[in-house]
Amino acid sequence: MLIVKKFGGTSVADKERILHVAGICAEEYHKGNDIVVVLSAMGKQTDVLLTQAEEINPNAPKREIDMLLTTGEQVSVALMAMALESMGVPAISFHAFQAGIYTTRAYGNARIERIDTARMEEALAQRKIVIVAGFQGISEEGDYTTLGRGGSDTTAVALAAVLKADVCEIYTDVDGVYTADPRLVPTAVKLKEITYDEMLELATLGAGVLHNRSVELAKRFGVEIIVKSSFQDIEGTRVCDWTGRKDVTGVLERGMISITQSLESTTMEEMLVSGVTADKNTARIQLKGIKETTKEMYKIFLKLSEQHIGADSVLMSPGSDNTTDISFTVPRDRLKETADTLKKYSEESTQTVEIGIEDNIAKVSAVGAGMMSNPSIAVSMFEALYEAGITIEMIYASELRITVLVNEEDTLKAIRAIHGRLIEKQLR
Amino acid sequence: MLIVKKFGGTSVADKERILHVAGICAEEYHKGNDIVVVLSAMGKQTDVLLTQAEEINPNAPKREIDMLLTTGEQVSVALMAMALESMGVPAISFHAFQAGIYTTRAYGNARIERIDTARMEEALAQRKIVIVAGFQGISEEGDYTTLGRGGSDTTAVALAAVLKADVCEIYTDVDGVYTADPRLVPTAVKLKEITYDEMLELATLGAGVLHNRSVELAKRFGVEIIVKSSFQDIEGTRVCDWTGRKDVTGVLERGMISITQSLESTTMEEMLVSGVTADKNTARIQLKGIKETTKEMYKIFLKLSEQHIGADSVLMSPGSDNTTDISFTVPRDRLKETADTLKKYSEESTQTVEIGIEDNIAKVSAVGAGMMSNPSIAVSMFEALYEAGITIEMIYASELRITVLVNEEDTLKAIRAIHGRLIEKQLR
Repeated sequence: MLIVKKFGGTSVADKERILHVAGICAEEYHKGNDIVVVLSAMGKQTDVLLTQAEEINPNAPKREIDMLLTTGEQVSVALMAMALESMGVPAISFHAFQAGIYTTRAYGNARIERIDTARMEEALAQRKIVIVAGFQGISEEGDYTTLGRGGSDTTAVALAAVLKADVCEIYTDVDGVYTADPRLVPTAVKLKEITYDEMLELATLGAGVLHNRSVELAKRFGVEIIVKSSFQDIEGTRVCDWTGRKDVTGVLERGMISITQSLESTTMEEMLVSGVTADKNTARIQLKGIKETTKEMYKIFLKLSEQHIGADSVLMSPGSDNTTDISFTVPRDRLKETADTLKKYSEESTQTVEIGIEDNIAKVSAVGAGMMSNPSIAVSMFEALYEAGITIEMIYASELRITVLVNEEDTLKAIRAIHGRLIEKQLR
Repeated sequence: MLIVKKFGGTSVADKERILHVAGICAEEYHKGNDIVVVLSAMGKQTDVLLTQAEEINPNAPKREIDMLLTTGEQVSVALMAMALESMGVPAISFHAFQAGIYTTRAYGNARIERIDTARMEEALAQRKIVIVAGFQGISEEGDYTTLGRGGSDTTAVALAAVLKADVCEIYTDVDGVYTADPRLVPTAVKLKEITYDEMLELATLGAGVLHNRSVELAKRFGVEIIVKSSFQDIEGTRVCDWTGRKDVTGVLERGMISITQSLESTTMEEMLVSGVTADKNTARIQLKGIKETTKEMYKIFLKLSEQHIGADSVLMSPGSDNTTDISFTVPRDRLKETADTLKKYSEESTQTVEIGIEDNIAKVSAVGAGMMSNPSIAVSMFEALYEAGITIEMIYASELRITVLVNEEDTLKAIRAIHGRLIEKQLR
C-alpha cells in the first residue's frame, strides 16, 4: 500500500515530536507499506521568518518572502530523514525542486500545475521513505513559490493523486473532524466519515482541520483522506465521496438522525447535519439602492475578484424604488481592501449606492447533505437561535449548509444552541 | 565594473547588520557597478542547525546534513534581497539550484565543477543586484552539497572567476591581513598586498582570514581578492600575484625589509617576511625504524589520504640500523582517525614500526617569499626562539615558509619573538 502522511507544524515542533512522527512512519514502513511524508515547518517557524522579513522590509517582494519561507519545511524534512535513518529506516528528503512540484507564478498563493514524480518514484522503488517539503513549489522559471497557509495539506493530497496513493493521512493536533469545535462545544462528537462536499463547507466556514483547497483537490482526484491525531493512536475521520463510504452503520453509531433519502441516485442511510462551525473572520457588506442589478453586480464582483477578495453568502433583496439591495460577507482581514475597492467602484459609478460595513459579526453554519431538501432542519435551527435569544442578521442557505450571521458576542451561544438542537437532540 | 562581494556570518548576524551590508552594496551599485553578493548563514545559524541534527541523529546521513545546512544561507540571501529592495535597489536572491553551482557529490566537502551563469547574467543585465547563497552547491543528481567550512569564500571567488568580475571583495570581521594576529601581537601591521602563495601558506598555517581553497581558486583563475572590514570603511589587503602588484612602494611604507631579488623573471622590490602565524590544531606523528622507506611511506600516506587526512611538514631522518625515522603533523582534530589508520598499517605491515604521537604542540610559521634563498632569516628566527627560551621540536622549511613545532604553551611567546625579530626589528 502507498500511503501519503502529512504532519503539521505542531507535530514536528521539536526533537521529541520529530522522533515520535518518525516512529509512526517507521512502524507503517515495516508493515511493508511505501510511505511518502509531507511536512510543514517546525512549530511557529513560518511566523518567526515572516516577522524577520517584516522587520527588514514591511513591503518585501513576494518572491523573496517565498524564498525565505521555504527554508522552514526544508529544515523539517532534513531532520525527519535523519530521525528515520537513526531508526534504521532508509529515507530521503526532497524540497520542491527535487520533488518537481511545479506551480503557477503567484508567489504566496500559487496553484500546483504539475508534478514530476521521477525522483520520488525512484526513491520509493528503492524502498526509501520519501519526505517532501509541504507548502512549497517552484515556478517554471525556477523560483520558489508557496501555496498559502495550509498549503501542506494541498501538497499531500496532490502527491497522493499523482502517485496514486491508496490513502492520504492528514495528522493534526485534533483527532478527527467533529460536529463542532470540542473546545467550544464539549458535547461535540467525532465523525467517522464525512463527504468531500460537507468537509469543504466546514473548511470554508472556519473549521480549521483541513485546508479547503486540499479537499477540493481530493474530491477532484478521488483521493481518500483520513484526518487523525499525531499524538494519540486512535481512529480518525475519513473524508471521501458518497460511494466511497464504508461505514453506513457508523452513521447510526455516532448518533446522527438517519433517514432514507435519494441523492446522486444512491439510496443510503445518511446523517443530515454533520457539523456546526463558526467563522469570526467575517464582515458584512451591504450595498443599498442598486439599479441595473446584474450589470452592477458584475462590476462589483469583478473588482473584488481582481483584488482576490472572496465574497461569500451573497444575498439580493428588493430595495426601495425598484432598486436592489445586495449583501455579502468578506473575510474581516480583507476589510480594508474591500472598502477601498468599493469606494473606487462608487466613485466610478454613475449610480448613488449606499455602502454599509459591519464587522462585529460572525458566521455560524450548520453543514450537512440535503439541508435544503429538509426544511425542518432550517426551522429547528432558527427556533433554537430564537429560544437562545440570538438575533439573526442574515441567512444564507444552500444544499449543503445553512449559515446565519449573528453578532460576534453571540457566536459561542449560537454554536451551542444549534449543536444542541440539530445534533445532540438526535442522540437522546 | 563587476564586483563580487562576500560577507560572512558575523556581517549578516542580525537585522541591523543586514541593512548595513545592504547599504554598502547599494552605494557601490549607485556608482554604476554591477554587484554580485555572496552570503554565509546568519551569525551562528550553521552551528545551531548542526546541533539540532546532532540531537536527532549523531550519525546523520551527510546528504541530509547538507539539506539542512543550506537553509541557513537561503535565509540570509532572501533577507538581503528584501533589505536592498527596501532601499529601492532591485535585487534577486539565488540558492545553489538557481545560481547553477554544480559540484562533486562529496556532501560536506564538495568541490565546484561548473557554474551555469545564465540566470545570474540575465539578472545582472536587468541591473539587479544578484545575491547568491554561499557555501552550497548541487550535485548532478540534483542534491544539495556544501563546500565545507569557509566555503562561502570559495563560492565568491568561483563566481568572480566565471563571471569575469573585476575584483572579489571578501568582507570579514578584521580589516585585512596582518603580519600576525593583532589580538596576540599588538605590534602586528596590516599588509597592503600579499601574493596568493603567501596567503595560501598563511591560510593553511592557521591564519583564519581566508579559506585556502578560495585562495587556490583565485590563484588559478587570476581573481584579485580584497580582504576588508564589513564594519569600518578602510582600505583592506589585496591578494594577487606578483605581476598584479600595484603597490611596490607600499612594501616600504609598511616597513618591510626590501631587497632586490629575481623571481618569476620579475625583478622587483619585495618584502621577505609577510606574516607570522600559529596553528594549535596540530599533532606530531613520529614513526621510527622504517626499512624500505619509499615503499613504506607510499603505503602510509596512501592510507592517510584515503581517510582524507592531510599530513604536513613531512621530515625524514636517518634512524638506527639503516632504518629511517619519519615525522609529520596532522590536524589535531583528526588525531583519532590518524591513530586508527596507523594502527591498521602497523598490524598489516611486516615491519616493526614504533609510533609516537604528541599533541601538546603548536606549529608556528613565518611566511614570505624567498625564505630559503635567504638563510639569514632562518638563522634570525632560531636565534629569536633561543633567546626567548623556547625549545624547537621540529623544523620544516620551504621556499615560502619556515615552520617550527613548539610546545603548545610556548605558542604566543614564539609568535611574539619571531614577529619582533623578523618584522618589527626591520621597522626600527
